[in-house]
Amino acid sequence: MPDPYQQLLPQLQRLHRLRGAMALLSWDQEVTMPAAGIASRAGHRATLAELIHAQITDPALGELLDAVADRDDLPPPARADLREARRARDRAVKLPASLVRELAEATALAQADWQRARADDDWPRFAPHLARLVELKRREATALGAAAEPYDALLDEFEPGLRAAEVAEIFDGLRRALAELVSRFAARDPQALALPPGPYPLATQETLSRRILTAMGYDFEAGRLDVSAHPFTESMGRGDVRVTSAFHPDNLLSGLTSTMHEGGHALYEQGLPAELHEQPAGQAVSVAVHESQSRLWENHVGRSLPFCRWLAPILALAFPRRLGGLTPEALYRAANVVQPSPIRIEADEVTYNLHVVLRFEIERALFSGALEPDGVPEAWRTILRRDLGLEVEDDRHGALQDIHWSLGVFGYFPTYTLGNLYAAMFWEQARRELPELDDHVARGDFAGLRGWLREKIHARGSILTAAELCREITGRDLASDDFIAHLKAKHTALARR
Amino acid sequence: MPDPYQQLLPQLQRLHRLRGAMALLSWDQEVTMPAAGIASRAGHRATLAELIHAQITDPALGELLDAVADRDDLPPPARADLREARRARDRAVKLPASLVRELAEATALAQADWQRARADDDWPRFAPHLARLVELKRREATALGAAAEPYDALLDEFEPGLRAAEVAEIFDGLRRALAELVSRFAARDPQALALPPGPYPLATQETLSRRILTAMGYDFEAGRLDVSAHPFTESMGRGDVRVTSAFHPDNLLSGLTSTMHEGGHALYEQGLPAELHEQPAGQAVSVAVHESQSRLWENHVGRSLPFCRWLAPILALAFPRRLGGLTPEALYRAANVVQPSPIRIEADEVTYNLHVVLRFEIERALFSGALEPDGVPEAWRTILRRDLGLEVEDDRHGALQDIHWSLGVFGYFPTYTLGNLYAAMFWEQARRELPELDDHVARGDFAGLRGWLREKIHARGSILTAAELCREITGRDLASDDFIAHLKAKHTALARR
Repeated sequence: MPDPYQQLLPQLQRLHRLRGAMALLSWDQEVTMPAAGIASRAGHRATLAELIHAQITDPALGELLDAVADRDDLPPPARADLREARRARDRAVKLPASLVRELAEATALAQADWQRARADDDWPRFAPHLARLVELKRREATALGAAAEPYDALLDEFEPGLRAAEVAEIFDGLRRALAELVSRFAARDPQALALPPGPYPLATQETLSRRILTAMGYDFEAGRLDVSAHPFTESMGRGDVRVTSAFHPDNLLSGLTSTMHEGGHALYEQGLPAELHEQPAGQAVSVAVHESQSRLWENHVGRSLPFCRWLAPILALAFPRRLGGLTPEALYRAANVVQPSPIRIEADEVTYNLHVVLRFEIERALFSGALEPDGVPEAWRTILRRDLGLEVEDDRHGALQDIHWSLGVFGYFPTYTLGNLYAAMFWEQARRELPELDDHVARGDFAGLRGWLREKIHARGSILTAAELCREITGRDLASDDFIAHLKAKHTALARR
Repeated sequence: MPDPYQQLLPQLQRLHRLRGAMALLSWDQEVTMPAAGIASRAGHRATLAELIHAQITDPALGELLDAVADRDDLPPPARADLREARRARDRAVKLPASLVRELAEATALAQADWQRARADDDWPRFAPHLARLVELKRREATALGAAAEPYDALLDEFEPGLRAAEVAEIFDGLRRALAELVSRFAARDPQALALPPGPYPLATQETLSRRILTAMGYDFEAGRLDVSAHPFTESMGRGDVRVTSAFHPDNLLSGLTSTMHEGGHALYEQGLPAELHEQPAGQAVSVAVHESQSRLWENHVGRSLPFCRWLAPILALAFPRRLGGLTPEALYRAANVVQPSPIRIEADEVTYNLHVVLRFEIERALFSGALEPDGVPEAWRTILRRDLGLEVEDDRHGALQDIHWSLGVFGYFPTYTLGNLYAAMFWEQARRELPELDDHVARGDFAGLRGWLREKIHARGSILTAAELCREITGRDLASDDFIAHLKAKHTALARR
C-alpha cells in the first residue's frame, strides 16, 4: 500500500508551484506590466486562484490528510507539512463559495470608493462599504469557527492560533509604555535633526541600496532589486526572491530604510530550508515572524549607532555636496527622530506601534459590535489624542489613510507590531550569542548576524509554530519588554549625548 | 436547457488565461528572472502545463464539444472557436501520456548534448538523440493519424492542414528561382556595401528601436520593449504584448531589423479582435501568417528604398560621426546585400529561404526513412553546395547550428518560408489597394498600412483558416510567384542603379 504522506507530497508541491506562478503575476503587475494589461492580469489571477482553491478543496486531498491524521511516527518536517496543509484546507473548505464571491464583489466596490473617499475626505462614502465588509467578515469568522470572539478567526489567518485577548494584553502595556516614551522623547525641533534637504539623485540611492543589500548578504544571483510605487518582497520560489524599493529625491533615509526592510524579508525567504523548498514545512512560519526579520534589519541594525558608523562615510562619499561632513552621530540622530504624525507609514520607531494599537482597538471593537462603522472617525480621533497627543486634521490623515479595510483585510495590522516585538527579542538574543555584533556591524560585516538568523529562524521554515520558535530561540513567550527596553535605552542615551 | 456553446466559453476562457500566465512565465525567464530561479521556473511551467493538459483532456469538455458538433446555426466566430478547440483537444487526447513523457525526457537529454556537440563540433554525440527523437515523433505522427506521410502530422501542428507534398511543390520552384537569383546577384564585395563598422552605442540603438516601433503603431501603453539574448514577442493577453530585441555594437542593422520583425509580430497580436480576446477565434490564425506579419515589416517595409529614405537621415542624426553622410541609397544597398553564408539566422532576404528548403528536405527524408540521422551532415553539405554554392567548414556551421531538433521540433522550419510567401502576397495586395503606400512609408507614416493589415488580417483572428484568409485577401492560394517577383524586381533594379 502506498504511503499516504508520500502521495500527499506531489499535491503540496503542485500548490506551492501555483502559488509561485501567482507571485510572479503579482510582482510583474507592480513592476513590469504595461498599464493596459490590468484587465488581462485580473483574469490570470482569478483563474489561478480558482485552480488553487479547487486543488485545496479536492476531496482526494482531504482523504489523504485524514489517512495520515493519526500518524505520530513522522519526522517534524512532515508533521509541519500536515499541520499547514490541514490548516489551509480547513479554511478553504469551511468558507462557502457564495461568501467568497460576495467578499470579492464587496471588496472590488469598496476599493474604488475608498480611493475616491480618501481623495475627497469623504468618510460617509466609505462607511457603508466598511459596514458591509465587517458583516461579511463576521460571517467568515462564524464559518471558520471563531475561538472566543469573531476577531480571533481573522487574526488566525495571519498569525495561526493568536487570540485577540492575548494581543490586547500585550498591546495594553505596550501602549502605555510607548505613550510615555513619546512624551519624554518627542523631538522639539525635528527639522534641526533631519538630514539636509535633497535632492539626492535616485540612481545614487539605488546604487547605495544595492550596496547595502549585498552587504546584508542578499543574493543577487537569486533575486533582483526594482523600483515600485510601494516597496515589497515577492518570492517566486527557491532561487527567485525579488525586492523592490521606492526612492524620493528629498528623503534619502526613507528609501534606504525601505531597502533594508525588504532586504530583511528577502533574507528570510532566501534562507528557508532548501531541502523542503516545495513543502509547507519549508515556508516562512508566520506573517509576524516575517515582519520581525524586516524590522530587525530596518530598526535594530539600520537605526543603530554602529550601523551609522559604517554608513555615514559611505553617504558622505556618495553625496559629497549635501553630506560631505556627515558624522555617524548626526546620521544616528536623523534616523531616530521621534515625531508624532497622523500617518502610520511615516511614523518613527517609537510612535509606529501606537498607530497599530489604534487600529487593533478599532477593529476589535468593530467586530465585537462595540463600535459602529459610522463611529470610526470619532474613535480614531479620541485614540490619537490619547496616545500621540495629536489632533487629526481630516479623515484622509485619519481613518481613510490605509488600504487594508477596503481589501477586506482585518486582523493584519497587529502583525506589524508583533513583528517589532519578535524582532526585539531575537535581537537581544543575538547580542547575547554574538558578543562582537556591534563591532561587526560598524565594519559593515553582517555575516555573523545573517548566519545566526539563518540558523535560528530562516532554516527552520515552519517546522515549529511561531510561538514554539520564539520559545526555542529566546526561552520566553512573546512579550513587549525587550522592545520597550530597547527604545528606552536608545532614547535615554540619545537624550544624554 | 443551457446552450452547450455558452457552457463551453468559460472553459475556453480559462484555457486562454492559463496560456497567458504561461506566457508570462516564459517572458520573465528570458528577460527578468534571476539566474538561480531556473529550477523553480521549470517547476512552475511543468505544473501549469499539466493543468492545461488536464483541462483540455477533461471528458466534460469533450462532451460539450460533441454536443455542439452538428450545430450549423452558429456565427463564424463561434464556429472558429469550435474548430480550434476541437483541434487542440484532439491532439491532446490522441497523444498517450507515456509518449509525452518519453518526449520530454528525450528532449531534455538532447538539448544538453546538442549544446556540447555544437561547441565541440561533435555530430556523433548528437546523432543518437536525433535518431531517438525522430522515432518518438514518428510514433507521435502515428498517434495523431498522419494524412499521407508521417511528416504531415508534424507540419499540421504549426500550420493546420498543410501537407508535405504541397510544401514540396511550392519549395521546389522556389528553390530553383532563388538559386538563380543568388548566382546573379550575390555581392562581389559585400564589405564595400556594408555600413561603416561600429561601435554604435546600444542605448542609441534602443532609442531608435522605440522610435521605429512607435512609428509602426506599436502601442507602448499595452506593451514594452526589452533586451534579450534572442529577440521574441510574447502576448500575455489583451493589453499586454511585449517585444524584445537584441543589439550589437558592430551591427546596427541587425538590431533594428530584429525590432521591426518583432514589431510586426506584436502589431498582429495588438490588432486581434478585442471582442473575441479570450476565445480561440480571437487568436492569431497560424504560425506562418504570424511570420508573414514580421517579415512584411522586416523586409517589404524595412528593406525598401522608401523606408530607407525615412530612416537614413534619422540614423545620420543619431550617429553623426559614423553615419553623418548616410544616403538612403547607401542604406538601401547595405540592407540588401546578397551574400551566401552557412548560417541561417545571418542570411539575407534572398538566401534565407534556401536554408529553410534545405531543412525541409532533410526533415522530410528523415521521417520518410530515406535518410538516416548519421547521414544528415553529408546531405546538408550536398544541398548547401547545390543551392548556395558553399562548402561548409564543419557541423557547427552546418547541421548543428539550429536548436529546433534538440527541442523535438520538426515541421516548424517551413513556416518561416511560408511566412515570407504570405508576406509577399499580402504586400502586393496592399500596394494595389493603397496607391500612396510608398510615399507614406518614405515619410515614416505607416498608419495606412497598419490599418490595412489590421482590417484584413489582424482583426480577423482565426475566424477563417490561413488558407481561407489568403484567398479572401488576395483571391489566390499560397504560392511563391509574388515573392520571387519581388526579389527579382528589387535586385534587378539595384544592379542597374
